[in-house]
Amino acid sequence: MKISVLVPINEFTPSQIKRLRSLGQVKFIPRRREMSLVQLEKFCRDCQILAADPDTLGGFDKAKLKLTELVLKLPKLKGVAVPTSYTGWIDNKYFNQRQIPVSFVPGYATESVAEHTLALMLSLAKKTFQTEMMLGTELAGKTLGIIGLGKIGSRTAELALGIGMKVIACNRTPKKQAGVKIVTLTQLLKQADVISLHVTDCVGNYRLIGRAEIGLMRPGAMVVNTIGNAKMVDERSMAKALKFGKIAGYAFEADDLEHTPLKNLKNAVGLHNFAWYTRESLVRLADIWIDDIAGLAKGKPQSVVNYVTLFDARAV
Amino acid sequence: MKISVLVPINEFTPSQIKRLRSLGQVKFIPRRREMSLVQLEKFCRDCQILAADPDTLGGFDKAKLKLTELVLKLPKLKGVAVPTSYTGWIDNKYFNQRQIPVSFVPGYATESVAEHTLALMLSLAKKTFQTEMMLGTELAGKTLGIIGLGKIGSRTAELALGIGMKVIACNRTPKKQAGVKIVTLTQLLKQADVISLHVTDCVGNYRLIGRAEIGLMRPGAMVVNTIGNAKMVDERSMAKALKFGKIAGYAFEADDLEHTPLKNLKNAVGLHNFAWYTRESLVRLADIWIDDIAGLAKGKPQSVVNYVTLFDARAV
Repeated sequence: MKISVLVPINEFTPSQIKRLRSLGQVKFIPRRREMSLVQLEKFCRDCQILAADPDTLGGFDKAKLKLTELVLKLPKLKGVAVPTSYTGWIDNKYFNQRQIPVSFVPGYATESVAEHTLALMLSLAKKTFQTEMMLGTELAGKTLGIIGLGKIGSRTAELALGIGMKVIACNRTPKKQAGVKIVTLTQLLKQADVISLHVTDCVGNYRLIGRAEIGLMRPGAMVVNTIGNAKMVDERSMAKALKFGKIAGYAFEADDLEHTPLKNLKNAVGLHNFAWYTRESLVRLADIWIDDIAGLAKGKPQSVVNYVTLFDARAV
Repeated sequence: MKISVLVPINEFTPSQIKRLRSLGQVKFIPRRREMSLVQLEKFCRDCQILAADPDTLGGFDKAKLKLTELVLKLPKLKGVAVPTSYTGWIDNKYFNQRQIPVSFVPGYATESVAEHTLALMLSLAKKTFQTEMMLGTELAGKTLGIIGLGKIGSRTAELALGIGMKVIACNRTPKKQAGVKIVTLTQLLKQADVISLHVTDCVGNYRLIGRAEIGLMRPGAMVVNTIGNAKMVDERSMAKALKFGKIAGYAFEADDLEHTPLKNLKNAVGLHNFAWYTRESLVRLADIWIDDIAGLAKGKPQSVVNYVTLFDARAV
């Protein structure tokens, strides 16, 4: 089994390297940097499993096309494993056609993002982003509204319950969680003192929070958005609401913090997308990625992004 | 009963004002600003209860002397009620001599300061003070060491337990709390991943965390100090430990953020002393203050700072 890993060897622990080597003949790229298609093709020649990192493929924007172009040159390929939980950069159609399973890594950053959400909630409430003396609010007894009760939303609910908040939530599909009251989105927007977004980063969820939704919120509500994509919230409407004090505070993560109407507002806090980025989640990320690679090597792929009908037959 | 309140009437709610007026003849000063001794004496003439605010008396530094000077001019005085939990500015000796009880307001900001502590802990761990992408740590499973298990330390322990941390604590006098392991200060310094200070702001606790204590801490430990007094921690030793990475982060509250060796360190975060300052704690503060005033008016003083032997006899 030939495995090409598009991440340098020093990003793995000795036991992780040992485990990878036990799966077959493993090649690691020397440095984490963008590579040309020719370089990639040469490095991956004859590989059966491609452990592909978007950085080497030019980042999320370029990687979608580049990965399919690369895969076209790899006739022996049996599977691709990517080290991301975001899967918008995978061309599912193409990989289905080629009958190649693509594994991703869900859940590795649940704790990190949930704690980051709590950090942002508390920072908005207690105004720790301002070094001057500012009147804050307590969170105990207040209501947190969670939009999207997946793994991260669910853990965020636990953290909030743990510090004495009430928690309400809405989810696309029916879901239950101890201590959490399930409501409609409209009810949530009307009732919550703090609102936190935990939906999937996909086009269908863009502008989930627009002018109408902000209009429904309680005066003085606070909003947290750790999705790392500015498109979830209509930033112009949010900026207006923050200016007029309808919304007391908005904390968000985004790649571009320069070109946003929220830039110079005192009650808006923008951070680069690093909620997920902790020592602990990096270890979990590599562990799950290697699990995925092992699954592909053994013909039992896990966490498959695309729909691959013939895989089981082909893998035998 | 003549009551002089050194805070403007608009800082109380209608029901609080009603309650105060039910106790006797109440006078409020027009504005919150420093007053001269002559002005104060004129305003407070003949008063039996003085509801004294340190702002009107020139702040904590000047207030100690000014309050005793003022009280000297008030022969009918039966009691003083101050709206602070810090009591270092009360001249106990003098008030004992004069047999005048002084009531203070403990506990009004417990929730606010405990939540602020959690906000700072999470912010240090997740590095939300840096807008650039920074590698953080998770707090779940980590050990919090609480120095001083009073009301605020105890509530901070609950919050930390609520988000899945382990909690150890040390206290001057023996104390028990569910889920909290009591250890010695030395054990705490050696074992904790995060250390939070919740001791009394008094001279005996200055330099509680010095070079030797920092030396005992785990490499990469984080320290939070919401006491609002920079003297608790030896800032030169802390600055050195932060520079060399022995301590990963230090968050503190202090009045003077300009003249400190911690000023330009990326992993030190200094905030003005506003952990206590929330909408909720201001309401509680006024409520407890009025309870104190009522206690004095009815001859049953509560939360007395000084030791007044004859009070019961005199109050009849």
